[in-house]
Amino acid sequence: MNKIKPTILKGTREYLPKEMAKRNLVMSKIRQIFERFGYDSIETPIINPAETILGKYGVEGDKLTYSFKDNGDRDIALPYDLTVPFARFVAANWSKLPIPFERYQIQRVWRADKPQKGRQREFYQCDIDIIGSKSLICEAEVTKVITTLFSELGFSKFVIKLNSRRLLNSILYKFGIEDAAGVIRIIDKLAKIGKEATIEMLTEIGVDKAEELMELLTPENSNEETFKKLAAFDTSELSEFFSLCENMKVPLERLQFDPSLARGLDYYTGISFEVYSDEAPFGALCAGGRYDDLCSMFCDQDFSGVGVAFGFARIMLGLEEMGKLDDIRLSSEVLVTIFDDKSISDSLSIYSDLTDAGINSEVYFEPSKLVKQFKYANKKEIPFVVIMGPDEKAKGAVMVKNMATGKQKNVPVGQLSSYLTNYFYA
Amino acid sequence: MNKIKPTILKGTREYLPKEMAKRNLVMSKIRQIFERFGYDSIETPIINPAETILGKYGVEGDKLTYSFKDNGDRDIALPYDLTVPFARFVAANWSKLPIPFERYQIQRVWRADKPQKGRQREFYQCDIDIIGSKSLICEAEVTKVITTLFSELGFSKFVIKLNSRRLLNSILYKFGIEDAAGVIRIIDKLAKIGKEATIEMLTEIGVDKAEELMELLTPENSNEETFKKLAAFDTSELSEFFSLCENMKVPLERLQFDPSLARGLDYYTGISFEVYSDEAPFGALCAGGRYDDLCSMFCDQDFSGVGVAFGFARIMLGLEEMGKLDDIRLSSEVLVTIFDDKSISDSLSIYSDLTDAGINSEVYFEPSKLVKQFKYANKKEIPFVVIMGPDEKAKGAVMVKNMATGKQKNVPVGQLSSYLTNYFYA
Repeated sequence: MNKIKPTILKGTREYLPKEMAKRNLVMSKIRQIFERFGYDSIETPIINPAETILGKYGVEGDKLTYSFKDNGDRDIALPYDLTVPFARFVAANWSKLPIPFERYQIQRVWRADKPQKGRQREFYQCDIDIIGSKSLICEAEVTKVITTLFSELGFSKFVIKLNSRRLLNSILYKFGIEDAAGVIRIIDKLAKIGKEATIEMLTEIGVDKAEELMELLTPENSNEETFKKLAAFDTSELSEFFSLCENMKVPLERLQFDPSLARGLDYYTGISFEVYSDEAPFGALCAGGRYDDLCSMFCDQDFSGVGVAFGFARIMLGLEEMGKLDDIRLSSEVLVTIFDDKSISDSLSIYSDLTDAGINSEVYFEPSKLVKQFKYANKKEIPFVVIMGPDEKAKGAVMVKNMATGKQKNVPVGQLSSYLTNYFYA
Repeated sequence: MNKIKPTILKGTREYLPKEMAKRNLVMSKIRQIFERFGYDSIETPIINPAETILGKYGVEGDKLTYSFKDNGDRDIALPYDLTVPFARFVAANWSKLPIPFERYQIQRVWRADKPQKGRQREFYQCDIDIIGSKSLICEAEVTKVITTLFSELGFSKFVIKLNSRRLLNSILYKFGIEDAAGVIRIIDKLAKIGKEATIEMLTEIGVDKAEELMELLTPENSNEETFKKLAAFDTSELSEFFSLCENMKVPLERLQFDPSLARGLDYYTGISFEVYSDEAPFGALCAGGRYDDLCSMFCDQDFSGVGVAFGFARIMLGLEEMGKLDDIRLSSEVLVTIFDDKSISDSLSIYSDLTDAGINSEVYFEPSKLVKQFKYANKKEIPFVVIMGPDEKAKGAVMVKNMATGKQKNVPVGQLSSYLTNYFYA
C-alpha cells in the first residue's frame, strides 16, 4: 500500500506535549488575567457564511481570507481575525448581553499569506473588547490589563506606544492637509523607511511643511515633553487618559505617547495602542484601540468600544527566548513502576490511590527491568518514581526515588499519597 | 448600506458568556482528570493537506468531510475526527515521543452531516489514547479514567458496555459464519431494530441458528452469569481485564459485559467500550477500544493502542439537564461602583487594589445612579458590590453589599481585599 506523507501545511503548526504544556500554561495565565478584570469568554464558529467574514478589510483582506464552497454549495469562510466574528456576534446577540459588555476570546484565525517567523497561516489570537461605553475609563482599564499581563508573564522591558486619532487629525488639519488618510498611510511606514524617506514621500504628495510636521510628530524623551511640544493642540483626551491610568496604578513609565503612531488609524477613532518589547522583537505583541463602528456591517445599532488583540505566537516566542518556560514539565509527577508479574496488583492499587488523591501520576504498563522504567521516567522528566519490589512489600512500604537527586526513601504504603501531596502541593 | 444578516451556519454553535463559563469549567475538569492519569496534550492543525484526512473512513466518510481547494490550488480538509490527525501526528513524530505515549486532545472536528440534537456539523471531541503497549493494563487504565471522569462530573447512572472482538469472532466462527463483517453490521443494529428483526435479518443472509446465536450474545443480569453462559469460549482476555480493573479499584458495577456490542468492531481488535447514561439519553457519551493499526496509512511503523473519544456536547447536555451547572456564574465576583464624578479616582484605586490582590472584579465605567449599577450587577449575577460615596470616604471605608442577601457592611479601604479574599478563597 502506498503510504501518505504525514505532513502538515506550511504556515500551520502542530504541538508536541512539551510545547503544548507551555502553551496551555501561558494560555491559562492569560485567561485568568482577563477574568480577573471581569472579561467573560465567548466562542464563535470556525466555519461561517462567507458574507459574515468577507468585506471588512477590502479586496486585500478578502484575498487573504480562507473561503470555499462546501458540498451544499454554500460559501464558507474561516475567520481572518476575531474582530469581525465578534461584531457579528454582538449584532446577533446584543439584546441578551449585559451592556457594557466585556468579552475575551481566544481562538485560531487564518491568513492565506506567505508564512514567515512570527507570522503563520493558522494562529491564535487573544482578544479583549469592552463595548457599549464611551468612557475613557475603558481605555485605562485595557491599559491596566496590558501592563498586568506582560508583567505577570515575565516581560520586563515592554512599552505601550499610544496615540490619539483625534489629536493626529487636528495636527494634520493645522497643516492644511486634506488627504488625511493618504498622509497617515505614509506616516505609518515611518519605523520601516525612516524619517527622511517619510518626509520625502510626504512632500511628494504635496504636504507643504513635511519636515516641520515630522518634527512635531516625533516623540520627545518623556511624555511630559511631548505634551509640552503639542501645547497648541487639544491634548485633553490624552491627559485625562494618563490621569485615569494613574488612578488605576498603571506603571506610567510603560506608556509612551507617540504622536506619529498611525497604524490602524483608519479604523480607530480615539486612543490606540501598540505594545513592543526588545524581549520579543517580532513586531507588535499587542495592538488595538477605541472604535466607533463595530457592527455597522450587520445592524443599525452600533457600539463604541475599546479592544486589543494579543499575539499569542509572538508572546510565546518571547517567553521561550527569555527562558521563562524552561521549567515546564509534562503532566506526570510520579511514575509507579511494576517490579514483576507478581507485583502488578499492588502497583495498580498504589497508582489508583495516587490518582484518587489527585496526584498526577502514571503507571508503567508492564513488568520490566527497573532501569528501563527509570529511563522512561527520565525521558519524560517525571520527578518521582515509586517502586514496590518484594523487599518493600514485605515491609508494607514503597521506595520513592527522587529522580533529580537520586535520593531514595522508604514510605509506608498508607502514607504515600500524603507524603507526595505534601511535596507537591504544600 | 445593505446590512449583512449576522447568522451562523446550521450545525454550528456560538456560545454566550454564561454557557461558555459552563463549558470552560467542564473542559478544565476534563483536562485535569486526563492529566491526573498522566496524559499529555497535543494539538494538530485545523487546515490540513486533504490526503492526510481523507480515505480512512471510505467513500461515506470522505463525503462527510469538509474539504476544499485553497487559493494556492492546494486540496485542504478539516479534521473529521481526532483519530486520523493523531495517527498522522504519531507517524510524523514517533521518534521524538516517549513510548508508550499517552496523549489527550481536545479540539473541534467537522462533519458535513444533517444537524440534529446532539449532532452538530462543528463540535468538540475529547480524545485519550495510549499507544505503544499491548498490555491489558492500558484498557484497565482507560476504564478507570472513564469512571473517574463521569463520576467527578456528576453522572451517577452511567454504565460502560464492553465486549471483545476476539471473543465475538470465536463465537461467530463456532456458528460457521464466514462473513463476520456482514453479521457484525447486523448485530450492530440490535439496539435500534430489536431482537426479532435482527434474528430475521441474520437468517436472511444465511446464518443457520440465528436465534441461538442471539441468545448467546444477549447479556445476562450480571457479568458473572454472562461469563458462565459463554464458558465454552475463551473469555480469558475479558477475565484478566476485569481483574486488572479490580486492582485499579474501578467500581465494577459500572461495567457491563455485553457480547452483542458490535459497533466499531471493524476497527477495534480487542476490547471495546461504549458509555451510556439515562442522565444523557443522546446515544453513546464515550466510545473506543483497542486497535492495532493506527498509522499504517502513513508509515511502516505501526502502533497498537487503546483510545476513547468523549462527546463533549452530549456530556454538556446531560450535565445541563441534571442541573449540575446551575450555579456557574460569570467571571466577576465584585463590581466597584462609581458614585459620582468626584469619586472616580477612589473607585479606580479600589478596583486596582482588588485586581492586584487577584480578586475577579470589574468597575462600572461611568458615574451613574447606584440603582442602575446594581441592576447591571444583578444582570450579571455579580455577588458583591462595593460603594464609596461621600459618607464612606469620610470614614476611609467602603460599603460592601452582598447582592444575594441584601446585607451591607462597612469595611475600611485597607482591609477590603483581605475581607473579600477570605470570603471567596478561604
